Amino acid sequence: MKKLIFITFLVVLTATSAFGQRKIIYLPNIPGYETLKCDFHLHTVFSDGSVWPTVRIDEALRDGLDAIAITDHLEHTPKKDYIPVDLNAAWKIGEEYAKQRNLMLVHGAEITRGTMPPGHFNALFITDASLIVKDDVWDSLEAAIKQGAFLQWNHPGWKTQQPDGIPRMYDIHTRLIKNGWLHGIEFFNHTEYYPLVLEMAKQHKLALMGNSDSHGVVSEQYIEPTYTNRPMTLVIAKERTLDALKEALFAGRTLVWFRDILAGKEEYAKPFFYQSISVSKPFYQNDRSLFFEVTNNSDIPFYLVNGIANAPKSITLAANSVTRVTLSKKVTAPLVYDVRNVLTGETEVLKIELKY
Amino acid sequence: MKKLIFITFLVVLTATSAFGQRKIIYLPNIPGYETLKCDFHLHTVFSDGSVWPTVRIDEALRDGLDAIAITDHLEHTPKKDYIPVDLNAAWKIGEEYAKQRNLMLVHGAEITRGTMPPGHFNALFITDASLIVKDDVWDSLEAAIKQGAFLQWNHPGWKTQQPDGIPRMYDIHTRLIKNGWLHGIEFFNHTEYYPLVLEMAKQHKLALMGNSDSHGVVSEQYIEPTYTNRPMTLVIAKERTLDALKEALFAGRTLVWFRDILAGKEEYAKPFFYQSISVSKPFYQNDRSLFFEVTNNSDIPFYLVNGIANAPKSITLAANSVTRVTLSKKVTAPLVYDVRNVLTGETEVLKIELKY
Amino acid sequence: MKKLIFITFLVVLTATSAFGQRKIIYLPNIPGYETLKCDFHLHTVFSDGSVWPTVRIDEALRDGLDAIAITDHLEHTPKKDYIPVDLNAAWKIGEEYAKQRNLMLVHGAEITRGTMPPGHFNALFITDASLIVKDDVWDSLEAAIKQGAFLQWNHPGWKTQQPDGIPRMYDIHTRLIKNGWLHGIEFFNHTEYYPLVLEMAKQHKLALMGNSDSHGVVSEQYIEPTYTNRPMTLVIAKERTLDALKEALFAGRTLVWFRDILAGKEEYAKPFFYQSISVSKPFYQNDRSLFFEVTNNSDIPFYLVNGIANAPKSITLAANSVTRVTLSKKVTAPLVYDVRNVLTGETEVLKIELKY
Amino acid sequence: MKKLIFITFLVVLTATSAFGQRKIIYLPNIPGYETLKCDFHLHTVFSDGSVWPTVRIDEALRDGLDAIAITDHLEHTPKKDYIPVDLNAAWKIGEEYAKQRNLMLVHGAEITRGTMPPGHFNALFITDASLIVKDDVWDSLEAAIKQGAFLQWNHPGWKTQQPDGIPRMYDIHTRLIKNGWLHGIEFFNHTEYYPLVLEMAKQHKLALMGNSDSHGVVSEQYIEPTYTNRPMTLVIAKERTLDALKEALFAGRTLVWFRDILAGKEEYAKPFFYQSISVSKPFYQNDRSLFFEVTNNSDIPFYLVNGIANAPKSITLAANSVTRVTLSKKVTAPLVYDVRNVLTGETEVLKIELKY
Repeated sequence: MKKLIFITFLVVLTATSAFGQRKIIYLPNIPGYETLKCDFHLHTVFSDGSVWPTVRIDEALRDGLDAIAITDHLEHTPKKDYIPVDLNAAWKIGEEYAKQRNLMLVHGAEITRGTMPPGHFNALFITDASLIVKDDVWDSLEAAIKQGAFLQWNHPGWKTQQPDGIPRMYDIHTRLIKNGWLHGIEFFNHTEYYPLVLEMAKQHKLALMGNSDSHGVVSEQYIEPTYTNRPMTLVIAKERTLDALKEALFAGRTLVWFRDILAGKEEYAKPFFYQSISVSKPFYQNDRSLFFEVTNNSDIPFYLVNGIANAPKSITLAANSVTRVTLSKKVTAPLVYDVRNVLTGETEVLKIELKY
Repeated sequence: MKKLIFITFLVVLTATSAFGQRKIIYLPNIPGYETLKCDFHLHTVFSDGSVWPTVRIDEALRDGLDAIAITDHLEHTPKKDYIPVDLNAAWKIGEEYAKQRNLMLVHGAEITRGTMPPGHFNALFITDASLIVKDDVWDSLEAAIKQGAFLQWNHPGWKTQQPDGIPRMYDIHTRLIKNGWLHGIEFFNHTEYYPLVLEMAKQHKLALMGNSDSHGVVSEQYIEPTYTNRPMTLVIAKERTLDALKEALFAGRTLVWFRDILAGKEEYAKPFFYQSISVSKPFYQNDRSLFFEVTNNSDIPFYLVNGIANAPKSITLAANSVTRVTLSKKVTAPLVYDVRNVLTGETEVLKIELKY
Repeated sequence: MKKLIFITFLVVLTATSAFGQRKIIYLPNIPGYETLKCDFHLHTVFSDGSVWPTVRIDEALRDGLDAIAITDHLEHTPKKDYIPVDLNAAWKIGEEYAKQRNLMLVHGAEITRGTMPPGHFNALFITDASLIVKDDVWDSLEAAIKQGAFLQWNHPGWKTQQPDGIPRMYDIHTRLIKNGWLHGIEFFNHTEYYPLVLEMAKQHKLALMGNSDSHGVVSEQYIEPTYTNRPMTLVIAKERTLDALKEALFAGRTLVWFRDILAGKEEYAKPFFYQSISVSKPFYQNDRSLFFEVTNNSDIPFYLVNGIANAPKSITLAANSVTRVTLSKKVTAPLVYDVRNVLTGETEVLKIELKY
Repeated sequence: MKKLIFITFLVVLTATSAFGQRKIIYLPNIPGYETLKCDFHLHTVFSDGSVWPTVRIDEALRDGLDAIAITDHLEHTPKKDYIPVDLNAAWKIGEEYAKQRNLMLVHGAEITRGTMPPGHFNALFITDASLIVKDDVWDSLEAAIKQGAFLQWNHPGWKTQQPDGIPRMYDIHTRLIKNGWLHGIEFFNHTEYYPLVLEMAKQHKLALMGNSDSHGVVSEQYIEPTYTNRPMTLVIAKERTLDALKEALFAGRTLVWFRDILAGKEEYAKPFFYQSISVSKPFYQNDRSLFFEVTNNSDIPFYLVNGIANAPKSITLAANSVTRVTLSKKVTAPLVYDVRNVLTGETEVLKIELKY
């Protein structure tokens, strides 16, 4: 009774990387805002990257991003024997190309010092990268600020500069903060994260940032299924425009996402979680138990742990899935859980309640 | 500047096949209805299948289905030396198991004759399979109808019974239709499809059906990425209940889906398409062209072909993707297309218009 | 200059699970022996599994195995309301089916007690499982031995029976060993492993065993790329026959493999490693360094760690890959490494030298 | 009895793209020769490609290649506003980098004319690309020949230059051949192939070539499982050296491979096939049939078709697999087959015999 006849189908399945197509990342909006998916740290052949600027835009579209910044190093241009230094080249090549593809390209640059302090900074929303090159790093930072830049402190726990991996504030960072010149700080960079940065961001009112810092080919660095996405800054903006993006960043309205970790201030993480899921009424019951479902419509799984007595100890809400919960009828207390993979502090996770 | 430090992440990615979880299939509802994903043709060890009935339920949940029927052969029970014939066994084993998992299990059986005519028929929504076993096939069919069965003609173009693969109506099928006893007909079965069935369904007001007819392990038969799903009957029901499912099937409100082919009557296929996509306003223009986007929020790609003069000849709307369309400003006529993979007749495809 | 013309190719790629095909697992032979890939712990619908016995044989062929044992529980038959108990059924169904496919099927059964001690035992190479069912476990074990059985102690650290996960010898196990009745012990079971078992195997001269203990569908339990294979017992046999297989098991000539862990006695692990790899002469050098290559022709990666001064600290020899080693000319001492994923004791790993 | 305890394993699986590692492509050698895997057509940012030259070398290592040529267009340098034209740049950047990685880098360039005739030519084994730039194409070709170049006619059926896709010889090609200046011709280019080229290669004693002509990122253009490899020229060389590679190319000892198609002259294709497979003695027989196995140790599947009477009509020898053949004892004639995916002429395939 086995049928093994294979037929030729009408059409072939389309590769995901087709030209002119942007994958939809399923993430919720917080009421009144749009969740913009962004990567504000990328390199090209114009500093020490290995790809042409348009590759960064094509990659971003394929990956479902709304905005990127190309941030070539100002002071590290190892290909200059073959490519004359032009610190605005990526911007000039990419500006019109991005506009025609509905991707927001942010003009950026990386102020790069070899030791910590001061470390590396990205200047975003600048107008001319060449004017930011200065012998003294403070002069560079000031020149960026004069152009209206959003300043981001990059990978503050990078082991090359901080061998123990623990981010620390030095005088220069304190001065920047005092001046109101520092606006963001990286929690995720490439494949790393620095838990302490969450506290630094909360204390100093900095936007939490998550970026790939990609030098090579993104699709070769974040490979399914270990990584399903590059690190992203999720910007909670009033609308999908460059102005709204900038306003939200300066206001610090961000979450960051990489693999299955979401991190950010509780005021954004909590509504984001509740917009991601919905809890059904019980669909069935027997003598001992009732059964209800939790739908997670987002691309992020949620790991609920530390359940109350008699309730499930842990529940995994897989991404884009409906999870059945079997609940003892003995349970009457609120179904509270810790969400193990939604970080709201160095050692804190989001607390939620399932109301069925 | 390359950073190769890998960190240990908090938690591991969850496998898709976790117990108690149902994948969300992203398909739209037609206003006023719910789109139920169903497979009405499955076998177990109680006829010539190789798995236990609960496996069929677990597979269905994992695959995101709302309803299945287990339809073991009444007259073909090759394992009877080891398993005594019990034609209601799968139903008895599965009924409570399915209820606790919010899957609708339909009581079914396959009336199996080795030659065409009459071929094979599934009887769905029966009450006792053992009473349908009769020497004469007509008696079997009548016994099923007496139980209120929905009768489905299975794989009418199966080459073992129809060597040229072309489905044909014989006297018995005409009599069934005259009596109002035939309600559905398979367009997709396992890995096959029979284009002519679309015309037979339209002419005789039969529900178009798409089913896996799986005997072995579903996940080994429909392997990514060649197949992203098993064949499914999409039932357009008033709500997600067994009664509504049954009402919709007898009313013929179905579409069928396998790989990247969607098929069905135009009255269902057209609103389904328009609910799947949305067209943006132009987001940019230059002297020659304007640019807009088409969002396809469904798991089904759409291949638009035969574009009008000066417009793109073809546009692929990949599943769960946003596709950019570049349109010459010379174009003023409506942007009509054929949707090559949405079949509405043996040689007809759906015609649509993109209104930006 | 971009060419996007896609052509129709002659033929389609063949699925890996085609009927009648056995995947080649690339593992070396030790001189004088053949490495047989085996799984000696499998269940079917004849106890508490969910698949028919032929499924186990088809799965084994697809996965590249040489031999399996189907070991249904003697005392745990929860499907008996539908399937009359027949403890030799899987053997009767599978024997000829396996022979025609060049798979060695071992007649087996699992002696199952709910608590530890005594735990569970597999009896392999038996002649009639029904004669092994006894009220007293010792009588069961004796009956198996009378049939010439190879006795394997299953999952000695299974948390259901040993809540702390640590395997312990009880009186009954000591008596079995004293009698010469215990021949093997599981190091890998399903997705677990018990490091201490390596010491118990060495001390008591037991064959180290690694098995899937699969109850459901193997391909759904060991999913790429987290798991690339099920746990296997690698039997170092004089030839590929049932007699040679049995002789090797009783002689304790085994290694076990799961994911990227290989474990076993050093006398087998060491030649296995050296047969897997080859080291080239230096292919290039400059002032400071010389460059040579290590070829790993096996499906198992090897993680070399604890390199000597000035040599690479660690080298990953990916499976089926050639790895380049850059070596400072200052190094004159032997290039010794620990192979982190080849376990030769509870806390010991294999030590090797790269001779270029 | 279900065990769901997951343990933390010692080490993680290594990504395939690790630095300094070359995947092993399993293809046989023909006695007396080594099969070198090569791609002689690649672009970088120094013409119209989008990646830096070292990316081409890293990609080649990962993909298991022995040799590549970077062949930037001499006359098409659209990035010259940002990158001053340096036609030997890729060579200068890559030479030492490739040597340290045991990859043979061939100095090359593409002589590019917009219309057919003459089309495009790759000059391989040159010494200075800048000296080959000439107004007249013949002068360019002559300059290349003076440097000792191997001249390859690129994509002779490319639809941009040959709208019907059929390769044709023009005067200039005939003159080149008469002069002994044309040495190779592309059968595979990017994702295309041109069956007629096999006849042209045989008639004019040209080496058959298969190359990627990659401008973007190789891993994004040849995606598993539709494509498991880029197009390759398999050079049948006396040893793995640049000199032996060159000798073999000028002698025309090549096969070409892409997806599941192997093509070339019968004198190379036949021994290549027989080195790929081995046929066992019958391992079992019953009254009607005997059973033997065919082992295919190569990464290329072989599709045997047109079997003789009573023998299997077709046999698929999947890559790296053992295939069981069931043969009626009635068959006494030689088991001859056509190998449907090994092309030896425009409409010819390899004929082989299975001797068990």
